[in-house]
Amino acid sequence: MFKPSGIIALTTDFQEDSFYIAEMKVAAYQVARDALIVDVTHAIPPQDVRHASWVLLRALESFPEGTVHVCVVDPGVGTDRKIVAVLIHGQVIIGPDNGLFDVVASRYPVRAVVDLNNEVYFGPRHSATFHGRDVMAPAAAHLVRGIPLESLGEALGEPLITPEKTAGLLAHRDGNVIEGEFILADSFGNMVTNIFAEDIPEEWNLRTIRIEFEGQKLTGLVSTYGDREPGEVVALLGSTGQLEVAIVQGDAAQKCGLRPGIPVKIVCE
Amino acid sequence: MFKPSGIIALTTDFQEDSFYIAEMKVAAYQVARDALIVDVTHAIPPQDVRHASWVLLRALESFPEGTVHVCVVDPGVGTDRKIVAVLIHGQVIIGPDNGLFDVVASRYPVRAVVDLNNEVYFGPRHSATFHGRDVMAPAAAHLVRGIPLESLGEALGEPLITPEKTAGLLAHRDGNVIEGEFILADSFGNMVTNIFAEDIPEEWNLRTIRIEFEGQKLTGLVSTYGDREPGEVVALLGSTGQLEVAIVQGDAAQKCGLRPGIPVKIVCE
Amino acid sequence: MFKPSGIIALTTDFQEDSFYIAEMKVAAYQVARDALIVDVTHAIPPQDVRHASWVLLRALESFPEGTVHVCVVDPGVGTDRKIVAVLIHGQVIIGPDNGLFDVVASRYPVRAVVDLNNEVYFGPRHSATFHGRDVMAPAAAHLVRGIPLESLGEALGEPLITPEKTAGLLAHRDGNVIEGEFILADSFGNMVTNIFAEDIPEEWNLRTIRIEFEGQKLTGLVSTYGDREPGEVVALLGSTGQLEVAIVQGDAAQKCGLRPGIPVKIVCE
Repeated sequence: MFKPSGIIALTTDFQEDSFYIAEMKVAAYQVARDALIVDVTHAIPPQDVRHASWVLLRALESFPEGTVHVCVVDPGVGTDRKIVAVLIHGQVIIGPDNGLFDVVASRYPVRAVVDLNNEVYFGPRHSATFHGRDVMAPAAAHLVRGIPLESLGEALGEPLITPEKTAGLLAHRDGNVIEGEFILADSFGNMVTNIFAEDIPEEWNLRTIRIEFEGQKLTGLVSTYGDREPGEVVALLGSTGQLEVAIVQGDAAQKCGLRPGIPVKIVCE
Repeated sequence: MFKPSGIIALTTDFQEDSFYIAEMKVAAYQVARDALIVDVTHAIPPQDVRHASWVLLRALESFPEGTVHVCVVDPGVGTDRKIVAVLIHGQVIIGPDNGLFDVVASRYPVRAVVDLNNEVYFGPRHSATFHGRDVMAPAAAHLVRGIPLESLGEALGEPLITPEKTAGLLAHRDGNVIEGEFILADSFGNMVTNIFAEDIPEEWNLRTIRIEFEGQKLTGLVSTYGDREPGEVVALLGSTGQLEVAIVQGDAAQKCGLRPGIPVKIVCE
Repeated sequence: MFKPSGIIALTTDFQEDSFYIAEMKVAAYQVARDALIVDVTHAIPPQDVRHASWVLLRALESFPEGTVHVCVVDPGVGTDRKIVAVLIHGQVIIGPDNGLFDVVASRYPVRAVVDLNNEVYFGPRHSATFHGRDVMAPAAAHLVRGIPLESLGEALGEPLITPEKTAGLLAHRDGNVIEGEFILADSFGNMVTNIFAEDIPEEWNLRTIRIEFEGQKLTGLVSTYGDREPGEVVALLGSTGQLEVAIVQGDAAQKCGLRPGIPVKIVCE
């Protein structure tokens, strides 16, 4: 059972300046005028499904139960990829079934998946290139108005997410080494990894563990950026509990040449 | 008769990061606290009235009846150009009379034009350089509260839009050739044209027509980007029914060197 | 006594594309679901407290009585700098005590300062790196719900703002010369200064005063950009009554090489 909170959260690769964002909002408001629409970000790199899948995890962990997320990063728009609604962690995420859900599904159990194929709940406009406006935003707004998830289309019996798809997404520990990778830069250039606080055994000493990447070795985590001098490279557990590498008052992504996919490991000796 | 829906839609050239946007919103909220303000875009290139006039058409076709649009692209602020409210397609557009309305008026009949010169409805702040905040946003909010359009100022008898002004804005067909031009790039770099689906005769075969621009020739329209391989240049009818030229998962504006004003034609043989 | 209007205004250096903005909004909505949250700007240059302090002044003068501002430009997050709420000009500003308040306090009397150390009003998440989400946004939302300012923490007896801190922030006049400096560029590249209309004696003739900066001399103020030809460098009193230097339909910051901190003076002969 999904109980809507009235909040719709938008994550897209439209970029901030795009009128497509307004077109989606209008499509939602026309169904649910009192929806509270919150922009997560529209700056997903164009067509970068993997990046979006990590931002969706942040969003899922930030928004309250009952939120409907709409995520439009959809290079296959108009082809035969399905548009689905996934019930997970007390929230619904609507998006194309193109891998967007792999990260959240590797962290939380998927409760239901519905193929959004009931045209009754489509919007008034139809195009082959903008299903965010024509299908996803209207569906989100119908959920906000209390339409049951199962009314929006056919429940999918087979699992959307398979162990094969999610293998390699999360960090893994082998004895005294945790191996992960950088997943995205935040807006300050801090590089966030897929290593979570709970991946680190409690008995490890956070002040003496070694963080290794790209030939660099850092000793120990700091608590916050201000613990060191401007310009220094530091590692810390960021505001979502994920390991990140930062330069105090600087841009680590740029200055250290770090990109998503570059391996990072923690070693406890 | 204009019946407000409560929605105010903002289109400006202030750029996303500008505190001027907040100043306009506050000016509107102080009159109509429960207005629903939606940003269309603030990324109109500075002072580019022509670009804005095409975005206004998209906005007019996306927003519901009863919307009040405020469009601030106003290189002549403080000079003797009028600020007007135009009733068109069941919505009101407020903006400077500098050509902003030419495109919408070439597609829909103008029902009324009012010169916003009734100072009773001006905001509390007065400047010679920011009429968006001081005149337009307050006027929009008064309309949302139900003040009649004709109370905001003097009805203009002479037509705002003349055939001379709008000549050349729209595509035209001559026998088996439709001649138009590129008008703007969307946020993915897809180049949108002024050729609309309804400009193309029904008997033409969309799979065999030729699209020509800048020495390039494409044969046939695709239905959606995903119909072809990444990197391929395609032509299609986009989400507003306008012809556009795109590169699958790429930036056509940049890679093909396309700019607004470059001619494009469709040939049916 | 502070009477909340229900408006929360956000000013940060997160940059427009940042999901941190959404995380702060969610933290506020979870406390006060009907708060009206308005983005002032998220484009403060990273960690630029001085720039933010001038934008806060604009915001304070634009928003109505009862607004709660949250300003997160916080290079010292997690260190021992305090987070405070300052009652000033009928509004509350919440932010780190790192100099953010110097400009507003040099223009308006500070009525109360509270150290936001009452954990009862912290949000559910705790981090050492994101007090905007964990402390400031929840506090703002509690104010909106009517919690008294003094409940949020300890009143600070000693003055937050001292004459030493604010010396040199404002322009000063010596006889027939007013000396000030450029403080920020707006989104058009117009350079705004710290010289206000009320700093200029009424008997001075605005059409003959001389504006000097970087070896350039301009004679007289214009009323608005459109008074001169495109490309011309002009000086005028902008929409907040501050002296600014602009290029008509151009970018003065870039073309004249102007940056915050560069001196500017007005001479009356």
